[in-house]
Amino acid sequence: MKGSLLYEGKAKRVYHTTDESDQLVLSYKDDATAFNGKKKDEFAGKGRLNNLITSKVFQYLHQHNITTHFIKALNDTEQLVRRTDIIPLEVVVRNQAAGSITRRLGIEEKTSFTPPIIELFYKKDELNDPLINDVHAYHLTDITEQELTFIKQQALDINIELQKLFRSAGLTLVDFKLEFGRLKDGTIVLSDEISPDTCRLWDKETGEKMDKDVFRESTGDLIDTYTKILHRLEESVCAK
Amino acid sequence: MKGSLLYEGKAKRVYHTTDESDQLVLSYKDDATAFNGKKKDEFAGKGRLNNLITSKVFQYLHQHNITTHFIKALNDTEQLVRRTDIIPLEVVVRNQAAGSITRRLGIEEKTSFTPPIIELFYKKDELNDPLINDVHAYHLTDITEQELTFIKQQALDINIELQKLFRSAGLTLVDFKLEFGRLKDGTIVLSDEISPDTCRLWDKETGEKMDKDVFRESTGDLIDTYTKILHRLEESVCAK
Ligand SMILES: Nc1ncnc2c1ncn2[C@@H]1O[C@H](COP(=O)(O)OP(=O)(O)O)[C@@H](O)[C@H]1O
Ligand SMILES: Nc1ncnc2c1ncn2[C@@H]1O[C@H](COP(=O)(O)OP(=O)(O)O)[C@@H](O)[C@H]1O
Ligand SMILES: [Mg+2]
Ligand SMILES: [Mg+2]
Repeated sequence: MKGSLLYEGKAKRVYHTTDESDQLVLSYKDDATAFNGKKKDEFAGKGRLNNLITSKVFQYLHQHNITTHFIKALNDTEQLVRRTDIIPLEVVVRNQAAGSITRRLGIEEKTSFTPPIIELFYKKDELNDPLINDVHAYHLTDITEQELTFIKQQALDINIELQKLFRSAGLTLVDFKLEFGRLKDGTIVLSDEISPDTCRLWDKETGEKMDKDVFRESTGDLIDTYTKILHRLEESVCAK
Repeated sequence: MKGSLLYEGKAKRVYHTTDESDQLVLSYKDDATAFNGKKKDEFAGKGRLNNLITSKVFQYLHQHNITTHFIKALNDTEQLVRRTDIIPLEVVVRNQAAGSITRRLGIEEKTSFTPPIIELFYKKDELNDPLINDVHAYHLTDITEQELTFIKQQALDINIELQKLFRSAGLTLVDFKLEFGRLKDGTIVLSDEISPDTCRLWDKETGEKMDKDVFRESTGDLIDTYTKILHRLEESVCAK
């Protein structure tokens, strides 16, 4: 059963469970934020969509031998997960250039990265989640070199699986952000969410943006877009 | 003999030589710039000081088996160097936290880094020289993994030698920026300058800032400060 609130983030509330101390309930909110909280809005139904999309994606990853925090969806907006100590790194995998990297490094949008580029950001709202290098990560967090190598390999493996999943749903996976955490025994597992809030997804045929960029750039209806993603995932062969 | 102007940077003019196509004359200007050109001024005598300081430092590195572009000082403000194809990376070595890293990552000034932190910045004025990671460097420049490993090791070796040099001059080497370039045969050698414009130097006893920060922060007289650095280097045991 859902217990007391542990903490509240921009997209989710995190609750204790009354029965298992090493499990948590993630409750997805209807809030949307962008540019580190500078742009904000609320969309009725977003929490449900992201909870269901993330659940589908994590189930799919589980079927493809990626260990994650995910246990099960509890209802439309909530899921049960294994509690982890989140490592304060945002691990970004980029298959093509889009968003911040185009401005930061003057790289043209749609430039392909083979192999994909992995970027680390220090998860710290007060600092606007700055880009860091590996040595910064050792100074700012408690991860070891070996663990960072593992995390990067995991990120690449997850990329391959997600590319298959989204391709079968008629979508190109442009980039995405992952968070990893440590279980009580120290094992590092994929945590947090994978949703149109944390991925760039482009329609394979038309190139249309079908992710949080419709909100960032005010170019489309967020609920319509996320609903399409959920339906496509439900229909896709891979997701079954 | 000095030939035509090849290019002009913020701190130096670079001239061809009429006799040797693989040599260049670096002519140090009196200009000071900070915050990527946003703060600007001119200080009569600065060019001479940086030319003489850099010459001393590069001679010292040569004596300690570090290969550099430096050939000789030609006069008060000019030096002869081997022409290199500059790799557009600023390689920053930090022994202690100061400047941008304190703001960027919320690390307290004077925090020690053991081993030193190496940072790479993409040398591109239009982009404000952004911080990058190793994989960005492979995409943005033509260096290989092996070459980057070499450059980082060189940077650490140079750090050890420079720390000795400056320590013997009563100074703590807090951080510094290096540029590397390729000779015609592909060999990578240390290029550009090493001066109070490109190093943070603190008085070993008083902690007083004795580098470009006096200009950045308008806390002291640039010419006085750089003159002291030159004199201390001339007097120090190591520099002989
Ligand atoms: N399995 C987990 N165990 C503990 N915390 C988690 C887990 N998965 C995600 N979290 C954390 O839940 C918090 C709330 O998520 P979110 O609203 O996305 O936060 P943020 O505003 O930091 O993006 C985040 O700090 C996230 O890292
Ligand atoms: N040995 C060399 N061969 C060719 N170019 C060099 C060499 N050493 C330094 N340079 C380049 O000379 C230019 C002028 O220097 P500077 O005024 O410091 O430029 P910047 O404004 O880019 O800092 C820079 O582009 C620098 O990289
Ligand atoms: Mg989040
Ligand atoms: Mg320069």
